Amino acid sequence: MSLRIDQVTVLDPAPQGPRIREDVSVVVDEGRVREIGQARPEADRVIEGGGDLLVPGLVNAHGHAAMTVLRGYADDLPLQPWLERAIWPVEAHLTGDHVHAGARLAAAEMIEAGITAFADMYLFAEDVARAAEEAGLACLAGASIVDQPTAEGRPEEVLANTKTLLRERPPGEGRVRASLAPHAVYSTSAETLETVAELADEHGASIQIHVAETMQEVYEAEAEHGLRPLAHLDEHGCLTERSILAHCGWMTRAEAERVADAGASVAHCPTANQKLATGGTTPVPELLAAGATVAVGTDGPASNNRIDVLQEAKRAALTHKHHRWDAEQLPAGQALAMATRAGAHALGFTDAGRVQQGAWADLALLDTDRPHLRPMHDPVSQAVYAARGGDVRTTIADGEVVYHEGEHERLDVGTVVADAEQAATDLVTEAEG
Amino acid sequence: MSLRIDQVTVLDPAPQGPRIREDVSVVVDEGRVREIGQARPEADRVIEGGGDLLVPGLVNAHGHAAMTVLRGYADDLPLQPWLERAIWPVEAHLTGDHVHAGARLAAAEMIEAGITAFADMYLFAEDVARAAEEAGLACLAGASIVDQPTAEGRPEEVLANTKTLLRERPPGEGRVRASLAPHAVYSTSAETLETVAELADEHGASIQIHVAETMQEVYEAEAEHGLRPLAHLDEHGCLTERSILAHCGWMTRAEAERVADAGASVAHCPTANQKLATGGTTPVPELLAAGATVAVGTDGPASNNRIDVLQEAKRAALTHKHHRWDAEQLPAGQALAMATRAGAHALGFTDAGRVQQGAWADLALLDTDRPHLRPMHDPVSQAVYAARGGDVRTTIADGEVVYHEGEHERLDVGTVVADAEQAATDLVTEAEG
Repeated sequence: MSLRIDQVTVLDPAPQGPRIREDVSVVVDEGRVREIGQARPEADRVIEGGGDLLVPGLVNAHGHAAMTVLRGYADDLPLQPWLERAIWPVEAHLTGDHVHAGARLAAAEMIEAGITAFADMYLFAEDVARAAEEAGLACLAGASIVDQPTAEGRPEEVLANTKTLLRERPPGEGRVRASLAPHAVYSTSAETLETVAELADEHGASIQIHVAETMQEVYEAEAEHGLRPLAHLDEHGCLTERSILAHCGWMTRAEAERVADAGASVAHCPTANQKLATGGTTPVPELLAAGATVAVGTDGPASNNRIDVLQEAKRAALTHKHHRWDAEQLPAGQALAMATRAGAHALGFTDAGRVQQGAWADLALLDTDRPHLRPMHDPVSQAVYAARGGDVRTTIADGEVVYHEGEHERLDVGTVVADAEQAATDLVTEAEG
Repeated sequence: MSLRIDQVTVLDPAPQGPRIREDVSVVVDEGRVREIGQARPEADRVIEGGGDLLVPGLVNAHGHAAMTVLRGYADDLPLQPWLERAIWPVEAHLTGDHVHAGARLAAAEMIEAGITAFADMYLFAEDVARAAEEAGLACLAGASIVDQPTAEGRPEEVLANTKTLLRERPPGEGRVRASLAPHAVYSTSAETLETVAELADEHGASIQIHVAETMQEVYEAEAEHGLRPLAHLDEHGCLTERSILAHCGWMTRAEAERVADAGASVAHCPTANQKLATGGTTPVPELLAAGATVAVGTDGPASNNRIDVLQEAKRAALTHKHHRWDAEQLPAGQALAMATRAGAHALGFTDAGRVQQGAWADLALLDTDRPHLRPMHDPVSQAVYAARGGDVRTTIADGEVVYHEGEHERLDVGTVVADAEQAATDLVTEAEG
C-alpha cells in the first residue's frame, strides 16, 4: 500500500546539521521513502500534513520495554536498593507471557511517541521480539545474560535461548533482530564475555551492555580485574563496532576516545541516570568530539518513567549545557540527530533514522497545530525544545500508518493495556504474596 | 453553573505528603469545590472521570508569558548574548498588542497543560492581566521595572503604569492581581528598590524579582554594594513574605535560611537555568529544610521552550537527585506539592493549589487511559514521573471547564494562535528590518 504525505516540513538530521525542506510531499511505498518534493503521484492513502513537521521515526537505543508492568512500582530509591529490594524480587517471578504483555504495552507507548525502533535487553527476549513484530516496530532484542539463574532459567539455558534467537532472527536481516546482551561486567564473568564475543563475531551480532553506570561498578572492576569496565570489555572481545554501551556515566576522556576508536556506540540515558542518582555525567561532548556515535535511550519505564525519545533528547541537551555551563553544547540539531540518525546507526538499522529517498519509511509526523508549537521561527528548535512524544500525530513504521490522530491502526490497544495490567497484577501479587 | 466529576482519584498535596482518595466524586459550584466523596448531587454538567487523576490546577510561579512570540527565535546561546543579541533588540519593538497576543497564546498553552495560575513579569503588564482574565486564569501580573527606558516607556512611565495597575487590580482581591516586578538587582537602583518596597507595603502587593540567576550577578552585587543580591534586596526592603524570588541558582545555605526566615518564596526554574547554562543549582533541599516555600516556574517560552509545570516538577526532582547523588531527594509527592500548593502559596492565591472542600475550583484532570500511564501502581509517581501537561484531559478554572478533550471551551484558540503568529511576524520584521 502506497502513502503520500502532503505539505510537510521535513527535518532530516544530516551529520553537518539538519536539512530542512518546507512544503514538500513525501511518497512512501513498500516500506521505503520513494520521493520527496513537489510531485504528488497517486497513492492509496493521502495524509494532509498542513505544515506539520516530519522527522525520522525516533530510535530508543537502550531500554527494557517489558518493565512497563513495573512503572511506578518503586521510585525515589538509589539504584542498588531499588534493584535489590523492589525490582529483582518481582522479576524473579517473570514469565514469557508477562514480558510479552509488558513489551506490547511499551510498543503502544512508543508508537504514540513516534518511536519506530528500539534496542532491548531483558529476560525472555523472544517475547519482546514477538511484541515488536506484532507492533510493526524495528527491534534489536537480546536476552539479558548474567552468571546467576534468573526467571528465564540457568545461565546455560539463557545462552541456549540466545543461540536460538540468533538463528531465528539473524542479525543484519529484517526489522526484528537478535542481539547479544551481557548485562554488565559485574554480573558476567570474563569467560561469559568471551562466549558472547565469539557468538557476536560468528553471527555479526550487536552487543548491548550496561557500562560504567555507577562509580561502584568502576571501582569494583578496577579492584577485581585491574581494569576499568571498558578496558575489561575490550580485553574480552566485547568492545566492537557493533557494541552499544548503555549509560557510560563514569567514563574518562581517554575512554571516550577508545569508544570512538572501536567504532562503538553509546546509549546515553540522562533521565534514568538522574532519577536513580547514579552520579557522574556521560562525557557526551568528548564522545562526539572523538567521533563516537552517541544515541539516547530511555532505559526501562520503571526508572524514567516514560518512553519518550524526543524528551530524552531535550534532557540530554539540557544536561550537558548545564554540566559545562555552556549553552552552546548539544544544540537542537545535534540532539535531534542523536534521537534519530545516531540511534539507527547504533542499532545497525542503517537505512533508518533519515528522511531520504530510499530510506526506511519509519517516520513521525509532529502536529504543529497546537498553541505550544506556535509560532514557527525554527522548526528544529521546535521539534527538540518545544515538542514531545505526545505531539506525534502520525507514526509510520515500515511504510505502514500504525498510529494516526490518537488512534492505533495496528495494535488493539484496549487489549494491549488490559493484558499488561493483568500481568502487572499477577506478577506483583505473586511477588508480594 | 454547577459541575460534578465522577469516579476520579484525587491527589491532594498536603504538606506531610499527598493525600489520595480513590473513586470519589467532586462537586463544584460558584468557583469552589463544594464536596468530595461518594455523594453525587445533581449538577448542570457531569464529567465521567473513569479513574482519571484529579490534581489541583498547576501553578507557574515564574514566567514571561508573552515571550511565546519569541519561542525558538534564538536558542543554544548563553544568557547574556541571548539577551543582548537576540531578545532585547526584538523586545525594543514590543507594543501592548504584541504582549496581549503573546500572553493569550501562552494562556491557551497553559490551559492545555492544566495550569490555572501564573506569575508574570513583563512589559505592558496590563495586557498580560487582560489576557489572563479573558482566559479565566488566575494571574499575578507585574510590569517589569528597570532603570532604563523600555518599549513600554521611561522608568517613571512604567512606575505610573504599575501604580494604575495596583489601583485597578488590587492585590489580595480577585483572580487577576497586580504585583511589583523589579527586574533584578543589577538592573534597578537601590532607590528604585526602595520605591518598590514602599508600594508593595502600601498595597500589600507581592514582589517578583530575578535573584542570583548568574554567578556574574552575584559577583557584581558584591563588588558594587558589598552585599550578595539577597542581602541587598533585604537592605532595601524587598525581601518580604510576599517576595517571589526567581531562579536563586547561586545561593548559599545561609541565604536559603534567610529566605525561609523572611517567609519569602523561591520560584525554581531548572529548565531555563539549564538551557541558558547559567550554572549553579538552586539549593532546593536546603530551602525546604529551612522551611521556605519552593515553587516551580517555567520562565519564558523563549528559554524553555514550553510552558509545562508538571514537566518542570519532574525536572526539578531529577535535577536535585542528580546533583546530590541521592535518589531520595525531592520524591514525587514533594515535586507535586511544589507544582501546586507551594506555587499557590507563593503567589498569594491561598485558596488554590488544593483539592479540598472550600478551595478554589482550579483543577486539572489527567487522562490515565493511555498506555504510558498504565498500570497504576502509584498515582503520585504516575502524575509526576510519567504524566505531563499533554496528558491533561480537562482543565477547570474558577469552577468553569475551560478545556476538555482537546477542545477549548472559553478561548477561540484559532484566533488566539493567528493573532500571536501575526504579532510574532510583525515584531521580528520590524526588529530585523
